[in-house]
Amino acid sequence: MPDYSIGVDLGGTNLRIAAVSTDGQLLEKVTVATRIGRGADHVIDDMCNAIRTLSDRYRGGGAFLGAGIGVAGIIDLDAGIVRKSANLPGWENYHVREQIERRLGTRIYLENDAKVAALGEQWLGAGRDEDNMALLTLGTGIGGAIVLDGKIFHGMNGMAGEFGHVTIEPEGVPCGCGNRGCAERYASASGIVRMARELIESGQAPELAKAANSEAEFSARLVYDLASKGDAAAQRIFQRFGCALGILLADIVNILNLPVYVVGGNVAAAWDAFAPRMFEELAQRSLIYAATAPGDPSGTSKNASVGIKQWTTVVKRAMLGGDAGLFGGARLPSISS
Amino acid sequence: MPDYSIGVDLGGTNLRIAAVSTDGQLLEKVTVATRIGRGADHVIDDMCNAIRTLSDRYRGGGAFLGAGIGVAGIIDLDAGIVRKSANLPGWENYHVREQIERRLGTRIYLENDAKVAALGEQWLGAGRDEDNMALLTLGTGIGGAIVLDGKIFHGMNGMAGEFGHVTIEPEGVPCGCGNRGCAERYASASGIVRMARELIESGQAPELAKAANSEAEFSARLVYDLASKGDAAAQRIFQRFGCALGILLADIVNILNLPVYVVGGNVAAAWDAFAPRMFEELAQRSLIYAATAPGDPSGTSKNASVGIKQWTTVVKRAMLGGDAGLFGGARLPSISS
Repeated sequence: MPDYSIGVDLGGTNLRIAAVSTDGQLLEKVTVATRIGRGADHVIDDMCNAIRTLSDRYRGGGAFLGAGIGVAGIIDLDAGIVRKSANLPGWENYHVREQIERRLGTRIYLENDAKVAALGEQWLGAGRDEDNMALLTLGTGIGGAIVLDGKIFHGMNGMAGEFGHVTIEPEGVPCGCGNRGCAERYASASGIVRMARELIESGQAPELAKAANSEAEFSARLVYDLASKGDAAAQRIFQRFGCALGILLADIVNILNLPVYVVGGNVAAAWDAFAPRMFEELAQRSLIYAATAPGDPSGTSKNASVGIKQWTTVVKRAMLGGDAGLFGGARLPSISS
Repeated sequence: MPDYSIGVDLGGTNLRIAAVSTDGQLLEKVTVATRIGRGADHVIDDMCNAIRTLSDRYRGGGAFLGAGIGVAGIIDLDAGIVRKSANLPGWENYHVREQIERRLGTRIYLENDAKVAALGEQWLGAGRDEDNMALLTLGTGIGGAIVLDGKIFHGMNGMAGEFGHVTIEPEGVPCGCGNRGCAERYASASGIVRMARELIESGQAPELAKAANSEAEFSARLVYDLASKGDAAAQRIFQRFGCALGILLADIVNILNLPVYVVGGNVAAAWDAFAPRMFEELAQRSLIYAATAPGDPSGTSKNASVGIKQWTTVVKRAMLGGDAGLFGGARLPSISS
């Protein structure tokens, strides 16, 4: 039996824990409630009990290599601390890694959730054929991560891959970060809702206004449903979304020149509504992309015919959904040194 | 005596060749004319003769490690070919590396000129205290390069660091690459001249118009001289330049999170005219930069006082001028494997 490790998704509502073998098989997955109200020590106790139960079950076969934990927020990698997380209020000075290591007596890796998701997609998902890729996670905002040579590229202090705050529109909508026109003000769930509200207020979106009045919660999903039914105003929102995402991707392609860019997160489900416009902008705004985009179905392009390696730049959807972070977390003990 | 190697700057007008020791001492530098008209074989003969003369002179001390050659244009790193270079017309299918290796019997490294300049600055110049940095070369356009762990980060096929074509203004000036509003349409010598001509045509720049009529060649330098003398229109051009460069830098900082960004190239000489606005935009548009910018002269920031490592993101001018590429070329044999 191969060696195995544990991946943890430490969310504000649920703690999800998986045992994964080093050859990428999911051995078992459990979910327990995150009892935030009882304090960090209790949450960590619950997590450690679950990790212990799961890791004990597979002992006797391969070796247990440790656990990798993904958390939404800013992680201090050196200290093993969650510096800032909307899901874990009050944990700012809590030594997460140290507390877990003390309880379990094994090496623990703490990471940002978008970073472990990227690692999971690179290992077993949409990026599995390449060692180098970037992940854009479209949710309330835009999360991002860069994987180089099969490892997370952190930059100086773990902030590399802040794709959501790349400037898409220099005089655009103000963002909480202090900038204007950040990508995530357009190409995210909150961006969709904001744009929908603006259209409703301007009186240009009667169907959206009706939906907003009749639903308890006005969501990006609702705007997507209307767009799918052919509502012009809702479709215009996804055009703007696709345009912003295309500009962002073009900037990233021009800077990083990676072979694969994976688009994940809940909002990636609206792919059919935004992707055509996204690809259009991307091809127009990045010569690197235009020159290396796949889609030579004959397989007999000029380069191929003269024996030059056919480079391709691929933008594709994530494959592992919410489990990407579990796989990525479980990958951490194997690739960290 | 330490080992040594040769760095070559293969330009369209001059061939510059330097012998550099592995501890970074310039041993000798020679310049010969690039006799482009006589064909690639002759140019390579001249280069090889100069490399041989120089390398022979220092033999007997340390070992000769090889030569690294920087060329403006698109390099096929695998094949050792100059795919596209404005300076070397007709060289597209000429096997530069192979031809030199055959003549000299030593390992040769071919690189893009902005990439070797970055390597030089990282080794001995503005980035010498860090293993990770990016270089922006402001010339006719904008060249770029990323150095990670002391080596050039090439991306998939050598195109990483195409900073000049990052979108700064989505509906901006068309660029030859097919995009609109590329950074290099604003923050470069050609950008300065273009903006000056636009202001002259609109009748808003009498001093620029006068200068343009009296000088044989209307140049970015001329606009800078007027800005230095207090001409409002010329100063406005450098404000726009600084704004565009600030947006570009903010995007790069948000994506890469490196400790050092070096600004070089001829146009960096106009630093005093564009840098204040550049830093202003950068701090507003990148929270990462704003949170880690140097400039706590007391040295008693909140982070320092609680014992947290003080991360800083530094944007500074290049130090080695036109010799950066020679040093970087000479560095290639030591760090390539």
